Amino acid sequence: MAEEKYFQVQFQPVGKRVKVLQGTTVLEAARQAGIELTTACGGNGSCGQCQVVLVEGCLSPVKPNEKFLITEEDLQRGYRLACGAQILSDVRLHLPKESMLTGQRLQVESSLKTFPPDPFIDAVDVQLEPAALQDLRSDLTRLRDALHAQGVKDEVTASSALVRSLPDTLRENDWKVTAYLRRGEILAVRPHGEKPLGYAVDLGTTKIAAHLVDLCTGEVLGSAGAPNPQISYGEDVISRLNYAVRSPEGGRVLAGKVREALNGMLGDLLRQAGARREQVVDGCVVANTAMSNLLLKFPVKQLAKSPYVAAASEALDVPAAELDLDMAPGARVHIPPIIGGFVGSDHVAMLLACELDESSKVTIGLDIGTNTEISLRIPGSDHLTSVSCASGPAFEGAHIRDGMRAASGAIEKVRIENGRLTLTTIDHEPPVGLCGSGILDAVAELYRAGYLNKNGRFQRERPEVQEGEQGPEFVLVPAQESGSGREIVITQNDVNEIQLAKGAIHAGLKVLLEATGTPPEAVQEVIVAGAFGSFINIQSAVAIGLFPDLPRARYRQVGNAAAVGARWILISRAARQRAQEIARRAHYLELTIEPGFSRQFARGMLFPA
Amino acid sequence: MAEEKYFQVQFQPVGKRVKVLQGTTVLEAARQAGIELTTACGGNGSCGQCQVVLVEGCLSPVKPNEKFLITEEDLQRGYRLACGAQILSDVRLHLPKESMLTGQRLQVESSLKTFPPDPFIDAVDVQLEPAALQDLRSDLTRLRDALHAQGVKDEVTASSALVRSLPDTLRENDWKVTAYLRRGEILAVRPHGEKPLGYAVDLGTTKIAAHLVDLCTGEVLGSAGAPNPQISYGEDVISRLNYAVRSPEGGRVLAGKVREALNGMLGDLLRQAGARREQVVDGCVVANTAMSNLLLKFPVKQLAKSPYVAAASEALDVPAAELDLDMAPGARVHIPPIIGGFVGSDHVAMLLACELDESSKVTIGLDIGTNTEISLRIPGSDHLTSVSCASGPAFEGAHIRDGMRAASGAIEKVRIENGRLTLTTIDHEPPVGLCGSGILDAVAELYRAGYLNKNGRFQRERPEVQEGEQGPEFVLVPAQESGSGREIVITQNDVNEIQLAKGAIHAGLKVLLEATGTPPEAVQEVIVAGAFGSFINIQSAVAIGLFPDLPRARYRQVGNAAAVGARWILISRAARQRAQEIARRAHYLELTIEPGFSRQFARGMLFPA
Repeated sequence: MAEEKYFQVQFQPVGKRVKVLQGTTVLEAARQAGIELTTACGGNGSCGQCQVVLVEGCLSPVKPNEKFLITEEDLQRGYRLACGAQILSDVRLHLPKESMLTGQRLQVESSLKTFPPDPFIDAVDVQLEPAALQDLRSDLTRLRDALHAQGVKDEVTASSALVRSLPDTLRENDWKVTAYLRRGEILAVRPHGEKPLGYAVDLGTTKIAAHLVDLCTGEVLGSAGAPNPQISYGEDVISRLNYAVRSPEGGRVLAGKVREALNGMLGDLLRQAGARREQVVDGCVVANTAMSNLLLKFPVKQLAKSPYVAAASEALDVPAAELDLDMAPGARVHIPPIIGGFVGSDHVAMLLACELDESSKVTIGLDIGTNTEISLRIPGSDHLTSVSCASGPAFEGAHIRDGMRAASGAIEKVRIENGRLTLTTIDHEPPVGLCGSGILDAVAELYRAGYLNKNGRFQRERPEVQEGEQGPEFVLVPAQESGSGREIVITQNDVNEIQLAKGAIHAGLKVLLEATGTPPEAVQEVIVAGAFGSFINIQSAVAIGLFPDLPRARYRQVGNAAAVGARWILISRAARQRAQEIARRAHYLELTIEPGFSRQFARGMLFPA
Repeated sequence: MAEEKYFQVQFQPVGKRVKVLQGTTVLEAARQAGIELTTACGGNGSCGQCQVVLVEGCLSPVKPNEKFLITEEDLQRGYRLACGAQILSDVRLHLPKESMLTGQRLQVESSLKTFPPDPFIDAVDVQLEPAALQDLRSDLTRLRDALHAQGVKDEVTASSALVRSLPDTLRENDWKVTAYLRRGEILAVRPHGEKPLGYAVDLGTTKIAAHLVDLCTGEVLGSAGAPNPQISYGEDVISRLNYAVRSPEGGRVLAGKVREALNGMLGDLLRQAGARREQVVDGCVVANTAMSNLLLKFPVKQLAKSPYVAAASEALDVPAAELDLDMAPGARVHIPPIIGGFVGSDHVAMLLACELDESSKVTIGLDIGTNTEISLRIPGSDHLTSVSCASGPAFEGAHIRDGMRAASGAIEKVRIENGRLTLTTIDHEPPVGLCGSGILDAVAELYRAGYLNKNGRFQRERPEVQEGEQGPEFVLVPAQESGSGREIVITQNDVNEIQLAKGAIHAGLKVLLEATGTPPEAVQEVIVAGAFGSFINIQSAVAIGLFPDLPRARYRQVGNAAAVGARWILISRAARQRAQEIARRAHYLELTIEPGFSRQFARGMLFPA
C-alpha cells in the first residue's frame, strides 16, 4: 500500500498554512485553512471563479476546463482553478482578491453591496477600583458605576449568566476590562483589546452556511459550510416536521442535531481565527419557518398540517445558551421575523441583501429550493408580495430516476445540437447521474429537440426514445460509458416530476403577477438567489417555462443572498430594522386559496409553444 | 405489635380534610392539610396562640400548660392547644381566625400590617379567531393582535418558552384564553377563570418558609416550612460558601439541593390548593447574600474571603426555569437587592415589612441568626444604616456542649429564684439539651444569681459550680433527671461562646449607634425579627447585655418579618419599588474597619454591672 503523504500549503497574502494529504484539491485545502474561495458553481469546475496563482511547488497538470476558463496569458502566469488543481508537493499559493469570499464575495455575488457596519454593540473600556474593605460594592455595581462614569447613559443591566462570569473575569484582568453593551445590557466582559465578534448563519434545509464576523468593521473573519445533519431524518421540510411531530423525542433529536452542528461550526471558525467563544457577543440565524422552528424547539404539529401556522412569526432574541450555542455569557441570537407560511427569515434576509424593498424597478426575487419563495416589488407601492410554492425536491435531484446531488460525476450541463448530445459533468468525471441544473438542461433540450411534446410526453416515434420499464425514456449515457456501469436516462416520470416542480413555480409567479396586476413583460428584473438558482442555465429555465420569457439581461443570479443578508442583520442596527420592516410590509399570499392557482398550475405543467 | 390506626380530621371553616395516624398532634395534622397555625413559640406549648376548638370526636386529655394558657371558660367551650392535643378518633375541629396564619398572621405578627395588593400582572381575556387558510397569522401574532384589540398598550413580547406553550394551549382551549402580562410580556396563557398565583420564599440558612399567594387579592393560599437541605454541607454561611469554593461540583450540589427543595415545596402547596404549576406566574425569593448567591449559582470565592464582595447586589429577575422551578413558561423570580456584605434581601424584606423606612421613631430593626443584621432608622434622615455581625451559631445551639435545636425536650426557659432552678422544656418532655432561648436564659440567670462574675467567669467558690473536664461548669439537670441519661450543664466554654455572640451583636449595635451619633436611650423602638428573636426572653437579653437596657415596652418581637416582606414584594409593584429604595438608601457600615469595633466587641463580652 502506498504511504499517505502530507504536504504543506501556504496561502498568501492571508498568511495561512495547512497540512493536507497528497492529491487534495486547492479548494479543499483552502477550506481546511478556513478560507472560503468564490465558487459560483460549487466547485465543479464550470464557473472559473476560484482562480489561484501557483507561486512555488507542484500541482496536478492543467485540465481542459482550465484551458477553457483561464486565458492563455494567465495560465502562463501560473493561474489555476482551485477546484481542479491537486496538491502534489509543498506549495505556496497566491490568492487573488477576487477569488476570496472573505470580504470580497459581495462584489462577486454580482451586485450585492456591502452594508456599512452600524454595530449594536458599544465597547467600553473601564479600569475599576479593586474591591476592598473600604469599598465593598458588589462586582456588578462596581462595573455599573464605572460604565456610568464612562458616559454610558442607559440603565445598565446584566443576565445572571453574565454575573456568573464577572468575579473571575474582573480579578483575572486586574479590574481592567472592556464591557460590551447593547442598550445598556452587558453582553460580555473581556480583557482590553479584543474584538467583539458575531456569528451569522443561513440555516438551510440541506446546507448550513456560517460566518464569523468582526462586529465593528463587518469584516468576515471566516466562513464555513456544512450539510444540515437533519437531512437523515427527512429530505424535505414536511417530512422533517412530521418526524418531529411523530414522537416527543423527534423534535428534540432534530434540534439537537442542528444545534450541535451550529456550535461545532462556530468552534471551527473560532479556532481558525484564533479567537475565543467568549468574544462572540451576537448572533443571527436566518432560516425558513420550519428550520427555525425546529431549531427553537417550537411545537410544529400545527405547522405540519393545513393551515400551516407557525407558533411565532416575529423576530426573536434568544439567549445563545438556550440554543446550546457556546458564546459570550450574555450573548443573544437574533432570529429575524418570517413573512408568513413557509416564507421565513432566510427569504427576508435575501430580500434585504438584494434590496428588493428599495428597488426602483419592478423586481421579482426568488429562491428556488424544495420550497420556492418568490417576492414581487412594485416601486411606489409600500409593500412586497410574497408566495411560497411547494416545488418539491426534483431540482435537487430527488424523485428523479438518475438524480443525484451536485457531486463529482453529476451531469450538470446538457446540450443537444443537431441531434448530437454533449454532456458536462462535475469534475469531468465519468457521468453517474444528473444534478439539478443537468436535469433542467436535459428536459429543456429534449423539448427543444422535439423528443418531448408540449404536454411533456415523449415522442415514441423518435428512434432515440426507447421503451423502459416504466414507459418511454431517453438514454443520455449508455451503460458502457457511464461511471456506474448503468445507463443514465431521463424517464417519462422524471419529466413529469420536473413538470410538477415548474408548474408550481410557474403558478406561483403567475398568481403573484395577476394578484398584483403586473403583466409579465413589466418585470424589469428577476433576481435568482440560492445554490441551485445560481448554477442553472437561465435559457433552459425559460425554455421549459420555469421562468417567464424575458430578455436574459433582466435575470441576475446572486448566489447565497440569504447568508449575505444574515451578515447585514448581524452587523447593522439599520439592517435589522429594515428586515423587520420588510417582514412587516410583505404581504403573504396563500397560493392554494387564490382562485387562479389550480388552473395556472395545470397550465404551467405544459411546455411553452 | 399494635395496629397503626388512621383517623380523619376535618377542619372548619376552611373545609380541609386529612387522614392522620392516631396520636398525631392537631398542629401536625393541620400542617399536613396545608394549614399553618400561628405558633410564636414554634409549637412547644408555651405561647398559647395555636388554639383550636374541638367540635366532635376525641383528643388526648388537657395538659397542665393548656390549663395555664387557656381560660377556664374557653376550656369548657372545647378550646385546646393544637401543639399538644393528640388525635384519638375521627375529629372535627374549628379554627378560630386568630389561630390561622393564612391571611390572619399579620395581625398576630404584632403590628405588621397587610399590604394592599397592587399586582404587576394584567390578566386579559381574549377570544381569538381560529387559524385558517384565509387568516394565516402565527399564534403569537394572533394573540398579540387580540391583546392590542383588548386595549393592551405596551408592546407585547414573549419568551421562547412561552411561545413553545402557545400552539397547544390555544387549540386545547378553543382559542379562548386569558393572557397574563407584565409590562407587555406574556408570562402565561391559561384557560379563562384561573387565578394567577405567586410563590414567595424566605430562604434562610437553616429554614425555608414558603407561601403560595393569590396575586390579585394577596391572599395566602398555603404556607410551608422545611429545613434548608444545604445544612448537611455546613451549618453557617461561611462553611457553606467554602464547600462551594472547594470544588466545582460543590456549588452545583448546594444549588441543586435548595432548588429541589423550593420546587418540591411549591408542588406541595399547589397540590394542597388544587392549583397547577402553569398558574404560578411570579415568584419572590428573599435570602441573605450567601444563600441567594448559592441559589443563583453565582461564584462565591470572592464572597467567602475578605473583603467579602458579592458578584451582584442589585435586584434580579431570573426566569423561573433558570432556577429549576417548574412554574408558568414565562414566569420570573424576583430576587430583591442586597444592602451590602452579608446583609441580604431577607433583611431588606424584613425592613420593608416592619416599615423601618417610614418609621417616625428612632428605630432599630434586628434579625438574630448566625449572622445578625441590624439596621437603624433615624426619622428625618433619608437613609437607614445597616451592619452585619458574625454572631456565630451559639444562639442556635451550636458550639454549646448541650446545645440543640428547638425540638422536643429542649430546655427553652430557665429561672433561678432564691437558689431554686425552674426549667421549661419544649413539649414538656424530659430535658435533653438547651435551645437558643434556654441558653440565653441560663446564662442570664447564672449571672443574675451570682454564679458568673462580670467577666463571665464561674465563681468556683459557689458550691453548685463543679469542676468539669474542661473547667468549671454548672449542672442544670442531673443525669438521673435528664431524658438522655446524661447530665445537662453550662460550661465555662458555653458561657464564653455566648459572650462572643453577644459581644459581636453588642459591638454592632454600639458602633451603629456611635457612627450615627445616636445615644442608646434615644432609641424609641427595637424590632426583633426572626425565629430565635421571637422566642427569647427580652429581659434575659437585656440582663446579659445582648440588648441595650431600654424599657421593655420599646421592644417588639415580630416573628418572620422577612417572609411577610417577601409576600409584599411579590404582590405589590409599590412594595417592590420600596424594597429597591430601602436597599439603595441603606448605608452599609463595615464593622471590622470601624475604629471602635474591637474595643466595643471586647467590652460587649462583659456582663453589665
